[in-house]
Amino acid sequence: MNKVIKLANRPTGKPVSSDFKIEEIKKPSPSDGEMLLKPKFVSVDPYLRGRMRDVESYVDPFKLNKAISSPIVAEVISSENTSFEKGDYVTAELEWKKYQLSNGNGLRKINPDLAPLSAHLGVLGLTGIAAFIGLTEIGVPKEEETLVVSGAAGAVGSVVGQIGKIKGCHVVGIAGSDEKVELLKSKFGFDAAINYKTTENMSNAISQAAESGVDVYFDNVAGDISDGVYQNMNNFGRIINCGAIALYNATSVPTGPRLEPMMVQKRLSMQGFIVSDYQEKFPEAVKQLAKWLKKGELEYAETIVEGFDNIPNAFLGLFEGDNKGKMIVKI
Amino acid sequence: MNKVIKLANRPTGKPVSSDFKIEEIKKPSPSDGEMLLKPKFVSVDPYLRGRMRDVESYVDPFKLNKAISSPIVAEVISSENTSFEKGDYVTAELEWKKYQLSNGNGLRKINPDLAPLSAHLGVLGLTGIAAFIGLTEIGVPKEEETLVVSGAAGAVGSVVGQIGKIKGCHVVGIAGSDEKVELLKSKFGFDAAINYKTTENMSNAISQAAESGVDVYFDNVAGDISDGVYQNMNNFGRIINCGAIALYNATSVPTGPRLEPMMVQKRLSMQGFIVSDYQEKFPEAVKQLAKWLKKGELEYAETIVEGFDNIPNAFLGLFEGDNKGKMIVKI
Repeated sequence: MNKVIKLANRPTGKPVSSDFKIEEIKKPSPSDGEMLLKPKFVSVDPYLRGRMRDVESYVDPFKLNKAISSPIVAEVISSENTSFEKGDYVTAELEWKKYQLSNGNGLRKINPDLAPLSAHLGVLGLTGIAAFIGLTEIGVPKEEETLVVSGAAGAVGSVVGQIGKIKGCHVVGIAGSDEKVELLKSKFGFDAAINYKTTENMSNAISQAAESGVDVYFDNVAGDISDGVYQNMNNFGRIINCGAIALYNATSVPTGPRLEPMMVQKRLSMQGFIVSDYQEKFPEAVKQLAKWLKKGELEYAETIVEGFDNIPNAFLGLFEGDNKGKMIVKI
Repeated sequence: MNKVIKLANRPTGKPVSSDFKIEEIKKPSPSDGEMLLKPKFVSVDPYLRGRMRDVESYVDPFKLNKAISSPIVAEVISSENTSFEKGDYVTAELEWKKYQLSNGNGLRKINPDLAPLSAHLGVLGLTGIAAFIGLTEIGVPKEEETLVVSGAAGAVGSVVGQIGKIKGCHVVGIAGSDEKVELLKSKFGFDAAINYKTTENMSNAISQAAESGVDVYFDNVAGDISDGVYQNMNNFGRIINCGAIALYNATSVPTGPRLEPMMVQKRLSMQGFIVSDYQEKFPEAVKQLAKWLKKGELEYAETIVEGFDNIPNAFLGLFEGDNKGKMIVKI
């Protein structure tokens, strides 16, 4: 039996269960040049929210009543394609289906001995690669500088902070629970961490945790949290806009303090960043991340939800802060 | 007889005449190593507003009841300094005084044959240099790209637009009167110009004037005008924050649409810019600007106000849009 998860409605504000529907479909058979894939691990990510809107963007919007797709690790069940064999593991953006065909386009073979399969969706996947490239190419942190990371317990943030430590920075994380704050300090080696939910004055909290001011701000959330960080930026500080989860569900244009006077006065730079623009740097990033992982310099956290039917719930959980590290569904 | 203009009050909101006071003082005599300078041309600039606030910034604030200073071209009246002779012309940040002493520190000799003296405060001075460095180092416009300039009829903006044309860009200017719009097109060679005061929907106006979208935005004003430009930025667009005159007189923190989602989605970069950070590039900039000026590829406009006592009025006029090009006081 095969199943598919489709987009039933375009969400207004925060997505809800009824925006998705699960249907039974036929299990397909590969023709010449094709193979049958069985997803084993499915990545759910905040950026998928953007694709649920019917607006032109850097990736096409999902179509109503069609399968949703996201990064997936799958097993090759049978193959009529000479480049792939039964038993191979591959990763790509695939559909939320229990079984699906592929002609091999866009598929990347993964080495299951390098790390657990799910790591290829996180620390060695797009989120780890985004952390590495965003921080090293745009943030360019120098030794003894201070790095602040928002969404720090997330899949990208937790890797950003650790790379910051490897690079010799003072690293401050912002997250949404005391448990996550503890995890950042104990597991990921952050120097300080702030629970934004119990912090009244974010600017004060940042200035205490980052006594020398903030040189690099890796931002996954935007909104009020970022306002507090901006106020503590040092001259020539760099801001990496990797995500804006605090604003993704907004139903009108969110407003906040205008940044331009501060940009000029402190000569800040701010740059929006999407990892898929840097495909040519992926192999180098994965190589470096795998090296750190092997040497034990890089920890990672996963929140694993079980069962195909729970993919939508796992996605909805991202907006409740349910995940520590990468949110993954095991099928 | 000698005179000085002092800061009488720190302005609240828009500066007014009574924030300044003019006093008679003694004419000084140079000691050994000193010279007596007589200012001939005084530059008044929007950034001086920032120095009237009592806040730490990239330059020290002006002191209450002390002379104000700004970029000035002066003549050496008498000299006890072996590096300068009577009759030399020099430029530097000098005080708003009819006569003053200098020991030569920070003074740059200028060649009066290169261009009219006042040009050394504009197209060959800090504003021209800011236009050149900001556009070429940060904006990096490519042939056939679209460049939008706000404050386009001002001292920086008018040079930015012309360099854009020299670099082969489609150039759109934004200014505050029909007369300025006409000047941008007829004298400065802009492809299109928009009077923001008579434009209801800035975003629509920009999309009409910049049909292929905006690749580089050189911003001198910020505020609502910039919001209209941001909406038309192309992917990988670059925003140069050179000034924010629309916000300088704000008495509370100005708010506007949050930029982060757009920064990510379009992979924009935004960078605050202060020309004095690029001292090592000044000679190259002046050389290039003088070359274009000589070849007739660079026009400049000045609004010249006459009389020492009118320096404050000329400064106040900046916030009323009184100037076309560089605002200068001739003494």
